[in-house]
This record gives sequence, structure tokens and C-alpha cells, in this order.
Amino acid sequence: MRNRGDKVSGLTMALIGGGSRNWVRVLMKDLALEEQLSGNVRLYDLDYQAAHENELIGNSLNSYAETKAIWKYKAVRTMEDVLTGADFVVISILPGTFAEMESDVHLPEEYGIYQSVGDSTGPGGMVRALRAVPMFTEFAENIKRYSPDAWVINYSNPMSVCTRALYETYPEVKAFGCCHEVFASQKLLAAMLKEMKGIDAARQDIKVNVLGINHFTWINKATYNGIDLWPLYSKFVDKYYEEGYGDWKTSPFATANRVKFDLFKRYGLMAAAGDRHLAEFCPPWYLKSPDVVEKWKFNLTPVSWRKNDLQEKIALSNRLVKGEERVNIKASGEEGVKQIKAILGLGDFVTNVNLPNIGQIRGLPLGAVVETNAVFSTDSVRPVMAGELPPDVHNLVIRNVINQETILKAAIKKDINLAFKAFANDPLMTAGISDAWELLRRMLENTRDYLPGWKL
Amino acid sequence: MRNRGDKVSGLTMALIGGGSRNWVRVLMKDLALEEQLSGNVRLYDLDYQAAHENELIGNSLNSYAETKAIWKYKAVRTMEDVLTGADFVVISILPGTFAEMESDVHLPEEYGIYQSVGDSTGPGGMVRALRAVPMFTEFAENIKRYSPDAWVINYSNPMSVCTRALYETYPEVKAFGCCHEVFASQKLLAAMLKEMKGIDAARQDIKVNVLGINHFTWINKATYNGIDLWPLYSKFVDKYYEEGYGDWKTSPFATANRVKFDLFKRYGLMAAAGDRHLAEFCPPWYLKSPDVVEKWKFNLTPVSWRKNDLQEKIALSNRLVKGEERVNIKASGEEGVKQIKAILGLGDFVTNVNLPNIGQIRGLPLGAVVETNAVFSTDSVRPVMAGELPPDVHNLVIRNVINQETILKAAIKKDINLAFKAFANDPLMTAGISDAWELLRRMLENTRDYLPGWKL
Amino acid sequence: MRNRGDKVSGLTMALIGGGSRNWVRVLMKDLALEEQLSGNVRLYDLDYQAAHENELIGNSLNSYAETKAIWKYKAVRTMEDVLTGADFVVISILPGTFAEMESDVHLPEEYGIYQSVGDSTGPGGMVRALRAVPMFTEFAENIKRYSPDAWVINYSNPMSVCTRALYETYPEVKAFGCCHEVFASQKLLAAMLKEMKGIDAARQDIKVNVLGINHFTWINKATYNGIDLWPLYSKFVDKYYEEGYGDWKTSPFATANRVKFDLFKRYGLMAAAGDRHLAEFCPPWYLKSPDVVEKWKFNLTPVSWRKNDLQEKIALSNRLVKGEERVNIKASGEEGVKQIKAILGLGDFVTNVNLPNIGQIRGLPLGAVVETNAVFSTDSVRPVMAGELPPDVHNLVIRNVINQETILKAAIKKDINLAFKAFANDPLMTAGISDAWELLRRMLENTRDYLPGWKL
Amino acid sequence: MRNRGDKVSGLTMALIGGGSRNWVRVLMKDLALEEQLSGNVRLYDLDYQAAHENELIGNSLNSYAETKAIWKYKAVRTMEDVLTGADFVVISILPGTFAEMESDVHLPEEYGIYQSVGDSTGPGGMVRALRAVPMFTEFAENIKRYSPDAWVINYSNPMSVCTRALYETYPEVKAFGCCHEVFASQKLLAAMLKEMKGIDAARQDIKVNVLGINHFTWINKATYNGIDLWPLYSKFVDKYYEEGYGDWKTSPFATANRVKFDLFKRYGLMAAAGDRHLAEFCPPWYLKSPDVVEKWKFNLTPVSWRKNDLQEKIALSNRLVKGEERVNIKASGEEGVKQIKAILGLGDFVTNVNLPNIGQIRGLPLGAVVETNAVFSTDSVRPVMAGELPPDVHNLVIRNVINQETILKAAIKKDINLAFKAFANDPLMTAGISDAWELLRRMLENTRDYLPGWKL
Repeated sequence: MRNRGDKVSGLTMALIGGGSRNWVRVLMKDLALEEQLSGNVRLYDLDYQAAHENELIGNSLNSYAETKAIWKYKAVRTMEDVLTGADFVVISILPGTFAEMESDVHLPEEYGIYQSVGDSTGPGGMVRALRAVPMFTEFAENIKRYSPDAWVINYSNPMSVCTRALYETYPEVKAFGCCHEVFASQKLLAAMLKEMKGIDAARQDIKVNVLGINHFTWINKATYNGIDLWPLYSKFVDKYYEEGYGDWKTSPFATANRVKFDLFKRYGLMAAAGDRHLAEFCPPWYLKSPDVVEKWKFNLTPVSWRKNDLQEKIALSNRLVKGEERVNIKASGEEGVKQIKAILGLGDFVTNVNLPNIGQIRGLPLGAVVETNAVFSTDSVRPVMAGELPPDVHNLVIRNVINQETILKAAIKKDINLAFKAFANDPLMTAGISDAWELLRRMLENTRDYLPGWKL
Repeated sequence: MRNRGDKVSGLTMALIGGGSRNWVRVLMKDLALEEQLSGNVRLYDLDYQAAHENELIGNSLNSYAETKAIWKYKAVRTMEDVLTGADFVVISILPGTFAEMESDVHLPEEYGIYQSVGDSTGPGGMVRALRAVPMFTEFAENIKRYSPDAWVINYSNPMSVCTRALYETYPEVKAFGCCHEVFASQKLLAAMLKEMKGIDAARQDIKVNVLGINHFTWINKATYNGIDLWPLYSKFVDKYYEEGYGDWKTSPFATANRVKFDLFKRYGLMAAAGDRHLAEFCPPWYLKSPDVVEKWKFNLTPVSWRKNDLQEKIALSNRLVKGEERVNIKASGEEGVKQIKAILGLGDFVTNVNLPNIGQIRGLPLGAVVETNAVFSTDSVRPVMAGELPPDVHNLVIRNVINQETILKAAIKKDINLAFKAFANDPLMTAGISDAWELLRRMLENTRDYLPGWKL
Repeated sequence: MRNRGDKVSGLTMALIGGGSRNWVRVLMKDLALEEQLSGNVRLYDLDYQAAHENELIGNSLNSYAETKAIWKYKAVRTMEDVLTGADFVVISILPGTFAEMESDVHLPEEYGIYQSVGDSTGPGGMVRALRAVPMFTEFAENIKRYSPDAWVINYSNPMSVCTRALYETYPEVKAFGCCHEVFASQKLLAAMLKEMKGIDAARQDIKVNVLGINHFTWINKATYNGIDLWPLYSKFVDKYYEEGYGDWKTSPFATANRVKFDLFKRYGLMAAAGDRHLAEFCPPWYLKSPDVVEKWKFNLTPVSWRKNDLQEKIALSNRLVKGEERVNIKASGEEGVKQIKAILGLGDFVTNVNLPNIGQIRGLPLGAVVETNAVFSTDSVRPVMAGELPPDVHNLVIRNVINQETILKAAIKKDINLAFKAFANDPLMTAGISDAWELLRRMLENTRDYLPGWKL
Repeated sequence: MRNRGDKVSGLTMALIGGGSRNWVRVLMKDLALEEQLSGNVRLYDLDYQAAHENELIGNSLNSYAETKAIWKYKAVRTMEDVLTGADFVVISILPGTFAEMESDVHLPEEYGIYQSVGDSTGPGGMVRALRAVPMFTEFAENIKRYSPDAWVINYSNPMSVCTRALYETYPEVKAFGCCHEVFASQKLLAAMLKEMKGIDAARQDIKVNVLGINHFTWINKATYNGIDLWPLYSKFVDKYYEEGYGDWKTSPFATANRVKFDLFKRYGLMAAAGDRHLAEFCPPWYLKSPDVVEKWKFNLTPVSWRKNDLQEKIALSNRLVKGEERVNIKASGEEGVKQIKAILGLGDFVTNVNLPNIGQIRGLPLGAVVETNAVFSTDSVRPVMAGELPPDVHNLVIRNVINQETILKAAIKKDINLAFKAFANDPLMTAGISDAWELLRRMLENTRDYLPGWKL
């Protein structure tokens, strides 16, 4: 790597996972459009073929007219190969397959427990965490061995537990977790400004203070051009509380923000993630039954939908590889590349990120991975003091934080009793104690291929 | 007061409240039997007549043959009179009357919320706290003015919030809260030793480490003669888990300990209060409906029962005053007098007590009133480091701690929105948000005579 | 005030103090050159005449060609007048006169204690704090009354104690303390880059992580264009350790940075203030005697010099008022105006600032005023997590922090015994206990006009 | 081990070190006189012959008429043999020999640094710590392997660092450090009561609250029969401040308590160790030169004296082994056996002890070994909340705590730079930075046989 102050060349990036997912292409495009950076991207995936296809697609971009920077892509077959010499490691994996995810999301329904996503918390998120932790432990061990000074960016869910597992294994790791859910909240506020004041505001100009945990983080202050947005948002919430804001039937991911609005009415803060995520971290106020979900105007996301969607993505990859279709190069609005530039010394910048709590949120346990703003600067990502949650919101959040800490320990110790402690304390867990045990045992059974060393 | 090393004479005690309740007589008897102490007892009650009757009964003890110490009792009409010159202040009041308590306990039933006691937590305990806090604030102000160096012993519920209110108002107050629920857990372990090992053990010889909050405190270590009691208790729980231990139909206070046993199976610790209290601090696992309560083999305590019981106590007082019946002087097994002696320098002693957390329980908020062991010694009650709760139990407890802190602030600020935050977050609160508001408003309306300065 | 997003007009600023000092003119010039801001500046000084002269000078700038923004200056006679309606309050006072400062700085010399500045710490800084605290307490009370939402910027020394006093009196105050000493350290690193690498680096592009207390703060990470500067600085220190860097004889403020270099050799961190300040916070390693000071190549600053200097400044003011001399309008390099803009929503920005510790420096007491980086953004100045000092530096720093907390309490309680506790524990205090008492008594006697309510 | 409730037989004790020192015989005598305990004592010493002699002497006690309990003594040759099956491990070692101690204590005198003991702090205590830590690390590893559940009692100096090293290596160790210096302070208060009030008070009846670190701990509350002793002590200090109390010329250990009195005058607390220890933790107020020491009326203890004394002890051992002299069996007044009984469940008891800070002293770092009261009970030693030191005393103490933490880390990492950081920050270190380096290097050279793995 050579840093000339205004440009960095010879940068080496390691991508772990990604396969046929969309985000790899997003990163490729953002890199192609960033003229201050260039270098190599190594691709590693359990499915080597998928990595190889990404290599072909990535390298094809170098001949596009829009491209401003040359990046050489190369699929590799081992962790050692992907990590050695890496300046940045980007991890985005699906822990297990959709078969396991089907059990995570839908088996609990037999016990009256509905989950809208099932990848972050709830019975499904917890079992997914049990699968993911050994993978992240292995990543951390390999990073320690092959690229101990690399910066590590995690995009995988459950975000908090996965990022936490990296630090648990290799405490000196320079890792953080990224998620764009907060951006959506900024966009909602921008849309509000447009609708209620006729102002066109860029997302980045909506300044927010963020505090909480990934997918259950909160905004306690939002301004635009120096103006406090809460009075306006309060009116906006009142206006759309019953009806909702947004067409929630267009896709399984769409919502009408009614959960977000209800939480504002209860707590006076803006919950800064999509309703599908927020609902899962609360007691079953919004997820008691499919009827209740419908009333709150969001969708359960069936895994069958994900399976179909994946087929379409694979087909697209094939077309791109064969040159039947062209990559549509435009900036994504994601901040990954901007973060990388800041860490390389190409411009400081404040944004929200998931990091171990070293005091940036007063009252949450030190070490737990939390989401707040941070200053990205030369070789550093330093959290900004975010203050503390009001007691009632703290109450909601801390329960999930403690469960996350417990599930992490359960995964490391491969201890079913410990896992059950978190499982039984999940806000969505309404089953009796023996039913809860039965459900956990069945879910672990369904995911046992990914639980090496467990005594089930 | 004169302290000769082995005896203290001229001690002045102030009793606030008590009225026709049993505990005043318990204290009278324990004082009469304690030969190292003597002095004056002043009695203050909103119902002066009740205090006056206690004066007559108390003084009558001085002529009993069993009596070993002379105490002069005197009813007074003002706080200034009861407090000035007091060495110890003992507070045991009912905040409001059984009319308000009827609303506390039974109105939530219309919303599907059942409470077995309703004086410590739950919707009822919270509204009771709102009534009690201004009373304790007034006590604290008067103590600061008239007896700033006195030791203050609180027996009133909700114990944590009432004791906390004293410290909030007068941070230098030397106050602690006493409760005998832990003793019952020690007695249960003694009974277990008798039944399973044939050993006769005194309650005091069952050594326990206590940590939690009043009526929801936990024992994480119990020994007898140096022997760890957990393996035996585990067998005992297994033996009686289904059937229960103890005849729960003999009185509204009786239980079969099934809740305690279930919590041990879930968490591996002994919950150290009666089942009626424990059930109220948990999600509605044990209080979902009267049928569920019956299955867990304990009783809801209707306020109608309390009303009858009060009539019997008043009748007994009358007979005692008239000399138609004699006080049956024997030691109560309570520790109040022993605590007083220790504070006077007449023998150190370790027991459980409710005090602000200054770190004795790691992880619970500093300042919140918690229950742990403490060393009682000359002019000092110092908590013993109790360690920390396991995360899942911490999770259960912290929720209630935060609610208590919030309800205290709501009472002080007379802020219904703040009160609602605690109310809506109570583990028993299963009503929807609008029903919850309605219930709170109705309950406050029923108790409005005791909410001076509130805008309802 | 009207905020249009890119410009703010009608801003109201309150300047407290300033008199004939240079900094008022610095601020005037920076305001005149900033086209995004305009409004009114009110001037308040115990010496009304001095404020009035500043009014005249300030208004004269509006006719200068270089001026890009119109500001109306107005001297006022009361705190109410200066504060009411203020958006920003800027405080820069000399607590007392040079007569008191003469005692602060020079009386300790009779006891073998030499101070190079005497305004931040040491016997002189402590007695100055005792004078300053009641003034800042009064400011805070008036701000609470007349401009509770204003942002307050303090430039007065002792910086930490004065800023702390504002928060002690009015905990909701939005105050911070500013000091440019860290900039000088950045400039030294820039000069090093020039000399050793031939690179021209702007001060602002030297990125530093700052942690400590004002005039005794430390840089534990410094980069330029993504490059760690420590290896280079280490060589630079070795090169100039004996000889020093910089001509220390040009002015009483000049130094050869030998103290800074020695501290780097001891601790591996860059102490980020001038040698004259740094030396005063250490044991008398550098201030044992005038000979030792000379060996370390810095100067004691006699108050007689300050008196002469003041005469020159007054003469300059006179010439400016009379129009005999023109203000030389150019940007100062100070950051005050940039900070104000950020708070108004005109661009986020990270710089070092003095604020109560809410956890930004792990290990230092919460509430103590510390110096770290902070993010300036819309209506917020949020500290960035700075990490912790290495134990040996923590050791040096905490001693002064505790003394500052003690002297603050002593000033508030007007308690000479408490003041003595800090005084006797100052690192420079080598006098025996009775000499220390004598010195303190004499110093307080000399400053008694500014100690209302003290029993001396 | 068999615990019958009132008696414990078959107890196994492991004694590490002791050699020809007095304290082994003290323990033997206390065990012989304690009728509730009996069992085996295994003796391990680097000098097997010394252990063997203790075996002979110990077993001889079983035939004495005064003896109430039978203990079988057996010298062993390996750590495995001494530890396997042990219920209690008692460690009392001299780290190194008097040759190294001579360097510790006297070499610094060449640099103007005088130490009265040189075993706890100061340059000597620090180098001693560097020798001791690897020994305690080895003990901890062996305890973890051979007797993981044993209770470990440490009597070795430097007490804090040695005890801390056990926890650093084996965090689950059940270890505490014992020292009788606090008893001497209680005895001084008893003597004061006798002299000024004619009251005969037993040491144990002087109730004290203790907080600080070993040999620099403080009493902030002392009572007798419920009476606060501070007013009386204040008079006592005034009376004897100049003259001193106690004949300080009778032995190298004797003092006139003038340091203790001076510290009371400065801080209002009783420093609870002998003057020789206290002086070493302060700046060189009391140890500036031999003249100053004499003025403060205590003694430097030359190592030559210790060498002579050891010869006498060896001679005594010889006479005891040969039966030429009889052991004089009487109770020592030490509390070791009482502590062991409490841990076995034979009676709770509160006394001062050295343990990792888990919050018992607010403000001192968690994990550092501190000295406070603790409740000894069945299988538990729980610290009692001791409160916090006043800021000025905290200031004195924290400096030493941080140095101890640093020296521990230096010993573990074998890092001379880290060791220097503590060394240079010792309150007694008045030498310049290059002299300090020279002194450290010479001291380490003199002790290099005990610094395996160091690069010197």
C-alpha cells in the first residue's frame, strides 16, 4: 500500500463471503467510482464458484467507461490466501443455509412465536448466533495469524454477536460492524421535511445522535440546518399514526412505520431501524399473531421468499458473467468506501457504527457491542459519547444486550443450559418452560451440522 | 442516652405508624425482654387514638413478671414531638387505607392482571408507591430537621421505594429497611435439613449470601456447619416440585413453594421471598389467571380479607387496653432489637438489610435500594460485598429496579407520563397501550386524595 | 437569530471580560472575516471604559474594506444586559488584578517554590482558583437566569476549575473551555515534518488524539496523511534533546521544548502544552530553582513583565480608538468562530476542548473537566472517546485532577482547611507542613479582597 | 477433612516457606491450643533442612501438656507433595536472600534515598516485588494444578503485589493476605484509653473501619463501646505530637508514632501501620535523610541487623530440635487460626484483610489488592463496604496503587522499561532521570539470579 496523501494505491482488500449476494456488487461499483483508491480485491467464499464469478464480474468493470479506478479481483481457496497482506477485511456471510434459516424463522410459529426477520434476535436470531459464533471465532483466529493489523468490517447478522465474537477471540482486532438501517431513519426524516416543509434535504445533512444496539438503536436528537426536528416529527407521527406512512405491501421488506411511530409515542425517541427489526426486540406487542402484524402494517418475511429471491440473484450473476447483461455502475449511497478512505487518512467523517462499548453509552455493559456515532479518522474509529438511554428504553434494550452476551458465552462454551437462559429470557418467548426447552432442542437439532462439539 | 458498654439506658425511640398492627406489639415484647436496653418510646400515628392505645398497652408491660427492662411509652401528636431527641426512628405505615389498596389490587383484574399481594410491585405496588413517596419525603425532611443523627428503620412497603425516598430527600439519613422474608427461606432450608437429614438446625445457623431487591432477592450460597446446601436443596426441589411443600390452603399467606422451586429449576438460585411476592416480579408466568395461581399453589390475598383481619386486630387492642386479655410476652424471632443493640455497640452481627447500592451488588445501579447482608456494628451498617447476579436473573431484577427508580422520580415530580413509563414496563402489564393508560388513570383517580399537587 | 442553512444572521454574542486584552480583537477580526455569520456583540467588563473602547473599535471594523460581515458592538453595564437573549457567551477574565497575581507567582519563591506561569496550578494557580470560582459561580447563576440556553465558551484560567465551577453551579449549562496550547504541539510536529522530511503540512492536517487536563494534556497518537508520526518524533526528540528546539530567549513565553522532550523520553507520549505550563504540573523536576529552569531552557514569567505589557496594550487600544492606528484584519488561526459555526449547524468539525468527563477519558473522575477531542455539531459538543492514559502518566495527572476538585470545593465552601489539603498536595509543594500553612495564609491575606465570606 | 459442626478433624495444611522464621512457631503454638481443629501440616521450603527441623519441633508439641490438639507435621520436597489435598495453603517466604535485600535497602542510599524497611514499596520494595512475582506465579500455577479449592493465606511482602500475582495467574484462587499492622493501631488506641480514661480495653473491642493498601492503610472510624474515639485521639495526638509516644530506641522496629501523628494532623485519619512503613509511602517528608528520620523518632532497619537476628533464630531452632529448649506455648494474639475456623464454618468474624478490590473501596482500581475489613464465614471471605478515602489521602494512596499495578505487569512481562515507570514514579524517587536509570540497573544486576528470562 502506498499513501501519497491524496491517493492510496496498492490497497489490498479481503472479502469473506458474499457469494451471489447483491452487496459484493455494490462494493465493486463504489470502488470503481472512487478515484482516490486502487489495488487488489481477494475473494473467499465457502462456495468457490461464487467467488470466482465475482472475480470475473469485478475484473470486467475495469473496461467500463464510467470506471475511475482499477481494481484487480482474484478468488482464492483458503483463509490464509485471502487474509495474508490484507489492509481491510470485509465479512458478509450467511451462517448456514436457508434450510437452517427456515427452522430459525418458522419452527417457533408452532409454539405461537412469530418473527418478522429472525436473523438478529428472537429464537431464530439466537440459534443463528450459535451457528455464527464459531465461524467468527475462526475468522478472528485467522485474522490474528495472517493479517493482525487489518481493519475488519462486518456486515453479517446477528451483527452485535458476530462483531462481539471477533473481539472475544482477538481483543486487539480493529473491527466494526456496519448497517444501513439508521440511514433509512434519516431518509424518513428527510421525506418528512419534504412533505411538511417543502424542504429538500440530503440524508447526510440530517444530523442524528444514535444510541442502542444494532437493529434496536435509537435516535434521541435529530437536526437539520441547526433546527431540532422533534417537534415536526411529533406532528408527523400524530398525522400518520393510525394510517401509517409508506406502502407496506410492495415487498416483504416494506413497512408503514407504525411500529416506529408507536415506539415514539411510548418513549419519545425515534427507534432507528425498520419495523420488522424493531418488533422483534420488544415483548410481543407487534408480533403476537399474523393478525396483529397486519394491524401494525408490516410483513413477516417467509424464508420461501428468500429462496426464490436467491435464484434470481444467481441467474443475474450468470448473465453478468456471460456478459449478457451489463453492471449498472452508480454510487450506492452506502458508506463503506467512505469509511475506508477516512481510515486511510483521506478525510475525517462521523457516522454510526457497531463497536464494543467503552463508555460511549453510559449504563450499557462495557464490552457489549453497541451502535453509536464514531469519528472515522486515520487508522482510528473512535466512538463519540452518546449519553444514556432513558430508563424505560434502557429497560427494553438491556434485556436484549444481556441475552446477546449470554448467547455468545453459550456458543463459545457449547453449553445448552446457558443457551436456554438467553432463549427463555427473550422478549418474544411466551412458551412455558417445558415447551421452551422442547423448541430449543428441536431448533438445535435442525442446525446441528453447524454446531461442532456440542453435546445435543 | 447513656452507654456503659454492656448496657444502654435512657434510649429514645420514635415509632411512626403502627396503629393497630401486630408489629408494634412484637417490638414492645422484644424490648421488654431485652435486659441491656431501657428508655422511652414515643408513638406517633395519624390515628392518635391508636397510638394512645399502644401507649397504654406498652406501659402495662412494665408490671409483667416476665419483663426485664422498663420502657416508658407516650403517644404524641406531632412529628416534631416524636422525632426530637430520638436515637432510633421506626417507621411502619400503611400508605392510605384499605379503600385505596382495594383499587390497587383488584382494579387491574378487570384488565386481566392478577396480583397476589399488590404492595411491592405490579400496578398496585406502583400506585401505592406514588402515595407513599410524599409521606416518606415528609418523614425525611422532619428527620433532617428534628433528629438528623437518628438511625431510621423502615418496615413499610413498597420497601425499596420508601427507603429510597428517604435517601433522595435527605442523603445523609442513616436509614435501612427491614424485612423477614429471607428468614422464611432459611427456615425452609432448616426444615429440609430436618426432613432429609434428621438435623435440627437453628435458622440463624443457615448462612446465606443474599442479593437482589426486597421481595425479589436471591440466595446464591447457603451453608450449614460449613456444608454447601445446594446439592441437598436440588434434591428437595425435585422431590416436591410437582406436589409442592407446605399446606397452602391454611391461610391467604400460605404457599406450597412451587414458585420458589420453579425459579430454582430455571436459574439455579433460591429466590428468597414468599411465592406471593416472587410471582409479582416475574412476567405473568404464575399470575396469568386465578387458575394458573391455583396450579402453582398459592393464594391471591383479597383486600376484603385484610379488612376483616383488621377488625379482629382492633378488637384485640381493645381487650388489651381494657385488661381483658394479657399480652403474651415471648421473643418474636425478629431481629429489630438485635440490630439496635449492634448499632449501640453491644455486639457486631451480620444480617440481610435494604440499603442503597454503593457497590455491594455489582451491576445494579448505584443508589437503588437493594437487599444484601450487612455488618451491624457501632453506629454503622455496612453492606458486605454480595457479588453479582447471574445475567438471566439480573435481567429479571434490573427491570424492576429501573421501574422503581422511575416510579420514585414520577412521585417526586408528580409526573403522570413518567409514572406511565414504569407502569407500562411492569412485567405483569399485558394490557395494550391505551388500556394501560386507562387503567393508570382510573387507579390514580381512586387514590387522588393521597396525590397532592398532581394534575390528574 | 435566523438560520437559513448556509448563513446565520441576527446572532447575539455576549462577551464577558476582555478589557484591553488582545483576544477581544482577535475575535473581532475573525468575526469580521466570516461571511456566514452576522449580528450583535455585547460587551461587559468590570472596567466599563475598557468595554466601551472595544465597542468603538469593533464598530469601526464595519467600515473596513476587508470586512465581510457586519457586527454591531455595544458595551453594557450589567450582567442582565449582556446575557439576556445571548446565543453565545464568551468569558475571558483575569480574576483579580496583577497585584494579586504578583503574590500568586512570587510569594512562593520565598519558600523555594518557583512557578513559570502561576495561573493554572501550583500555589499561585490554586489561590487564583479561589478568587475565580465565586466569579464563575456568579456567571453561572446569571446565565441560568438570563440566557439558560446559550452556549458558553470559557477562555479564562485556571481553565479546568473555572469551567468546572460553571457546571457545579448550573449543571445544565452548555459550556466548554477553549485553549490553543494543543495547536502549538501540532505546529511543532508540522515544523518537524518540514525539517526532517521537507513536507509542508498544515496544522489542522496533523491529526492528534488528545487526553488529559488543560495545560497538562497529552497526545498519544499523531498522524499526517495516514502516517504515524511517533517514529519521526522520537528521532526528532533525540536530535534536539540536549540542545533544545526553538530560541527560548526571544520572549518570556518562548521555550526550547526541552521539558516536552524529557517527558516524551520518560513516558513515550507528547505532552501537549508549552513547557512553562507542563513544568508546573510535575514534581519540581524542572522548577527546582532558577538555575534548573535555565538548564531546561524556558523562562519564569515575572508579573512585572505582564504589567509593562499591559501598559503597551492599553496604549494600543487608545491609538485604535482615536483612529491613530488601524486594526490589521487577518485570520487568527484560532478556532472560536469555527466552533460557533458548527454549533449553529454550519459544518461538523472535530477539535480539542475542555469538558466535564462523562467517560471520554477512562480512569479520570467523572465530572472533572478534562481536555479531549470532541465533535462540534448542531447544538452539540460531544466528546470523542479518548481512551486512557498509561498508568504512570495517569499517576501524574490524577494528582492534579484531585487537587482541582478539592480547590473547587474549598472555594465553594470557603474552607481554608480544604484549600490547604490541595495546597499541601501540589506537586511543587516542597515546604514543610508549617511553612506551607504560613505561605497559604499569607497568600490568602494578599488576595482577601476577592474572598468574600471567608474567615481568614 | 471431617466437619462435625463444632469440630473439624483431618484438616490438611500446606506451609510454604517459613524456614527458620518465628511465625511458623507462632502458627504451631496457636494450632496446638485450638481444640476445635486437628489434622496434618505439610512443610515445604527451598531449604529442606529448615522445613525438616520445623517438622521435628512441630511434632514435639504433641507431647506437651498444654497441647489441646494433635497435629502431625511432615516436611516434603516438592510443591506437588505439599499442595495435593491441602485445605489451606499458608505462604510466608523471603523472596531471595538478605544479600539481595541488602542491595534493595542500602544501594539507594548512595543516591540519597533512605528506606526504613524496603520490603513493601520504594526502590527496594519494587525490586523485591520483581523477584517475588515469578515465585507467586509459580505458586498460583501449582495451586491451580494440585489444590484448586484450597484457601490460600499469604504473609509475604510486598503483600499487595504478591497477593495480586496469585489472582493474576489463577483468577479463581481463594487467596487473601494477612498482616497484623492494623492490630498495633488498635493497641495504640487501647493504650490511649488506658492512659487518658483509665479504661482497660481489649484490642478486639476497638472497632475500626479500615481502608487503603497494606502498610499504608487508614482508619476513618474507631469506636469503643459505641463511643467515637476521634475526639480523644485528637487530644492524644496534640499531647504527644512533639515528644512522641513510645520509646523508639529499644529496637529497630520501635517508633514514637510521630509519623502517624503528623499524618493525623494533615489528614484527620489514623494511618494504620507502623511509622517505618508509613514513611515509605509518602514523599520524602520523613525519610529525607538519617537526621530527618531521627527527628521523626523512628529507625532505619539495616539489613546487617536482620542478618544477626537470623543467626539467633537459627540457633534457637537448633536448641528446640535438640530438645535443649522447650517451646513456650501460649496464644499469640494473631488471627490466622481464628480465620481458618471461620472459613470452616466454626463462627463468623470480621477483621481486616488484603483482597482484590471488587468495589469495597470506592475510587481505587478494581482488581488492585486493598486492605479493608471482611466477613469471614463458611467458605467465604467477603469484603465489607469501606467507603472511600478523602481526596487528599486518595491522592497519596492511588499513586502507590498504580505503581504496584505497574510493577506487577513489569514483572510478568519482564519489561525493564515498565519497571522503570513505576520506579521513577515512586514518591521517594528524588534522583534525576539518568541517576534513576543507573540505580535501577544496578539494583536489577544485584538481583539478577532471581530474574529468570529478563534481558538486563
